[in-house]
Amino acid sequence: MISGKNYIGNTLSAKGKVTYTTFNPRLNLKNPWTFFEASEEELEAAVQLAFRASEFYQRVPGKKRAAFLRTIADEIEALGNELIETYMAESGLPEGRAKGEKGRTVGQLRMFADLLDEGNWVEASIDTAIPNRTPVPKPDLRKILTPIGPIVVFGSSNFPLAYSTAGGDTASALAAGCPVIVKSHPMHAGTGELVASAIVAAVKACDMPDGVFSNLNSSDIQIGQQLVKHHLVKGVGFTGSIAGGTALHKLSNERKEPIPVFAEMGSVNPVVILPSALKEKAEYWASTYAASITLGTGQFCTNPGLILTLEGDGLDTFLETLGQEILKKEAGLMLHPEIHRKYEEGHKEMTIQEGTSVVADYQEKTAPNYARPKILTVSGQAFFANPNLHKEVFGPFSLVVRCKDLEEMKNIISELEGQLTGTIIGNEEELKHNSALVAQLQGRVGRLIFNGVPTGVEVCTSMVHGGPFPATTDSRFTAVGSEAIKRWVRPISYQDWPDELLPDSLKNGNPLGIRRMVNGEFTTNAL
Amino acid sequence: MISGKNYIGNTLSAKGKVTYTTFNPRLNLKNPWTFFEASEEELEAAVQLAFRASEFYQRVPGKKRAAFLRTIADEIEALGNELIETYMAESGLPEGRAKGEKGRTVGQLRMFADLLDEGNWVEASIDTAIPNRTPVPKPDLRKILTPIGPIVVFGSSNFPLAYSTAGGDTASALAAGCPVIVKSHPMHAGTGELVASAIVAAVKACDMPDGVFSNLNSSDIQIGQQLVKHHLVKGVGFTGSIAGGTALHKLSNERKEPIPVFAEMGSVNPVVILPSALKEKAEYWASTYAASITLGTGQFCTNPGLILTLEGDGLDTFLETLGQEILKKEAGLMLHPEIHRKYEEGHKEMTIQEGTSVVADYQEKTAPNYARPKILTVSGQAFFANPNLHKEVFGPFSLVVRCKDLEEMKNIISELEGQLTGTIIGNEEELKHNSALVAQLQGRVGRLIFNGVPTGVEVCTSMVHGGPFPATTDSRFTAVGSEAIKRWVRPISYQDWPDELLPDSLKNGNPLGIRRMVNGEFTTNAL
Repeated sequence: MISGKNYIGNTLSAKGKVTYTTFNPRLNLKNPWTFFEASEEELEAAVQLAFRASEFYQRVPGKKRAAFLRTIADEIEALGNELIETYMAESGLPEGRAKGEKGRTVGQLRMFADLLDEGNWVEASIDTAIPNRTPVPKPDLRKILTPIGPIVVFGSSNFPLAYSTAGGDTASALAAGCPVIVKSHPMHAGTGELVASAIVAAVKACDMPDGVFSNLNSSDIQIGQQLVKHHLVKGVGFTGSIAGGTALHKLSNERKEPIPVFAEMGSVNPVVILPSALKEKAEYWASTYAASITLGTGQFCTNPGLILTLEGDGLDTFLETLGQEILKKEAGLMLHPEIHRKYEEGHKEMTIQEGTSVVADYQEKTAPNYARPKILTVSGQAFFANPNLHKEVFGPFSLVVRCKDLEEMKNIISELEGQLTGTIIGNEEELKHNSALVAQLQGRVGRLIFNGVPTGVEVCTSMVHGGPFPATTDSRFTAVGSEAIKRWVRPISYQDWPDELLPDSLKNGNPLGIRRMVNGEFTTNAL
Repeated sequence: MISGKNYIGNTLSAKGKVTYTTFNPRLNLKNPWTFFEASEEELEAAVQLAFRASEFYQRVPGKKRAAFLRTIADEIEALGNELIETYMAESGLPEGRAKGEKGRTVGQLRMFADLLDEGNWVEASIDTAIPNRTPVPKPDLRKILTPIGPIVVFGSSNFPLAYSTAGGDTASALAAGCPVIVKSHPMHAGTGELVASAIVAAVKACDMPDGVFSNLNSSDIQIGQQLVKHHLVKGVGFTGSIAGGTALHKLSNERKEPIPVFAEMGSVNPVVILPSALKEKAEYWASTYAASITLGTGQFCTNPGLILTLEGDGLDTFLETLGQEILKKEAGLMLHPEIHRKYEEGHKEMTIQEGTSVVADYQEKTAPNYARPKILTVSGQAFFANPNLHKEVFGPFSLVVRCKDLEEMKNIISELEGQLTGTIIGNEEELKHNSALVAQLQGRVGRLIFNGVPTGVEVCTSMVHGGPFPATTDSRFTAVGSEAIKRWVRPISYQDWPDELLPDSLKNGNPLGIRRMVNGEFTTNAL
């Protein structure tokens, strides 16, 4: 079933001369498929199709877009075992994770379908006219959110399904009314093509315009760069490294017309452990964090890479238990030899920084592409002075910082870069008495967690998966949860517009029965 | 009362060596006050104060911030005649406009105060825990909007009150919980200082932290550039030229941590006149637009600078009447000799473009700084081929394009840059039959107007004063209306956070009685 070709709209196409393969890290072997990188001609065709599709697609009623999203979910499920096997062959991730991530992916598509069916998300607002107001009459003004146009989505390496071809970015953009061009992730191009085939099947089944979705193969950065620079592209979703995300953000800002770039990039997800937790529950938290650090071989953007502790009662127990628990974990397979190589380089680079010492380290040899978890520790003073220690090491790595007091801890937090999450472990009294420290942490993160772990990102309305730069390029939006749809729209206002020609959401009769702000009050009533 | 000094927080300060004056365009004379440009030391002090104030101010309850905004409004009103006279002396604008703009300014402050009193604007959202969910428990997640930190506001030349020192940007940022540093507009530094004194009086009266507001004088671009580059500044509001706004946007993106820049820049506000309007009401619309083009000597960002018409019945009558009506208007005073000089250069540059001809032009000599309105006309073909004709001429100028058919008109619209507004004049049948043309226009603008004029920007929830680049740098937000507060916040999520330590908006008991999204449903109930 895997052809290795691109989807230019609904059409399989292989006009490029560059080919590449994906890699099975478990077998340490190339996979059998050959992928054709998209040519410039194919890229241009995909963008032109998306542009033309946009004119039609933006006016497709929400309920029809909802049916389209549900059909995509059904078609992905219909891919059956081939999808699961390809996913495993291209990522080394186990079957349970493959199935779980597929469930999350179709769940997200259906969540956005529900949002569209309900219809309230467009934030319809109506201020009616006051023709006899002095000194000037008040016009009739009505506002809704409108899609911004073709979006380019860059899949992530670590979520071949949930944050790739039909992942959160694609699902939310299609829900918003924007065509999507996926720049397929080269590490799982086969998984990508299968999911793309499911989307194309849904496009046909639901009579959506050809070009509302395309999938472009690429083994390096050029295809992605050209897409971001294309004048008909109006937005970008990206999940990956700080280097990759900031490069795309820069490219966008060099355009004649800059466009929004939502890059979800790096984060060390600082965890602050307050004295009571070390005194009373050092072993519990050490064991809990050993599990969180090694979950999925540490290949999560919310992996706890930095643990801030205080010198004093329980710290030795915490470090000792953390080391023992880490050593009990089996070595984990990583997604790709290249990611494994970077992990090995990354933690070795940390180990040679002044003042660090090793808490836990496998000594035994592992099979190729398997990562040995590593925990280092360093004093607060050494950490504060050395920005190299603030960097993310993608994989099962964490750095435990031993602060001499709360003041030093607070100063460290104030110097941290923006993060997706910040976690505090302790009791309520400590939280209350350290409000300045909590405020510092809050200023650096998108999500605050109390007595838990940062791994595990719930898909719901109240989730913020985002954070100040460089965690993301735009902290005002979340990449996970229903609010992610807001990234692909802008408000538009209609003044004195004829009722019959307004979008249904704004018509006097409220034919969609949605919740609207009318003269400052929420109502589902007709005018 | 005007000292010429900067406000560094609550303190008047004049440590800089550079001085400058403002200009009275009506008298064609310098005004009597000397202003001291802020020194680097003063700039640094203002930013540090704002940063420290931010920690406290972001936690000030909404109702107290509301009282602060209302006190600012009261203090501005208490400035009395000195404010009106200074405004007139520094802008040449008439007394009625001065009083009207003061009313709009205090009205905006009170509108944001009402928004804070109501409290719903924080978009509180709660998803309660499901501890027994399998395979993993669902945590408790709660989300609200939180202020982003110190904001720099650049006042505009053409609204010395409503879009300057205590204008929409300052009012919305202070409402959101962000300290504000104003880069005072050099053309009306005296007006700015008076308004700043009112804000500082309110800071003291309401026990707000010193540094929640500063006002820095500057005669050129350096102070502004340094502010935008400062690492403790977290957002920028700007109203002005495309050159100025894009330069600041670029500076922000060169920062280690890029920050949001909301620059409201240029717009020619295209007006599309469909056949029925020319056939049946050519004289009415010509007369209506002669008034709109010359309102406030054309010095509005929503001035109709481009009128797209169709060759055929009524076009000659429209052009002839427009010419006659324009010539009946009195020459208008402009804000400053420099703005007048740019206007004269701008319309002369248009006149020498190939294919343009003059519809209306004063021949008589005017007093210094008075602008003679000018209307040019050009064929659709010549307009389409010449990007120079697409540029804004700030002042009482408009270009009437004669398209040979609707297809040419549609092509022209598709090539226009982003605009604040787009207007269509015609009847409902024409609107219905030209849906593709309407869709093209909608894609280029923030506000669509039917059978009206773009001048006049209503302050209300359904207003969008914004639009695709280069009308603004961020089309997802409006600069006018209550939604403008959303520019200065980002969402933050609390996971399993103790109830007592949550912001009041998220506490179980809903002590503020606000509307919250709880498990997907809006309610004002406690949990």
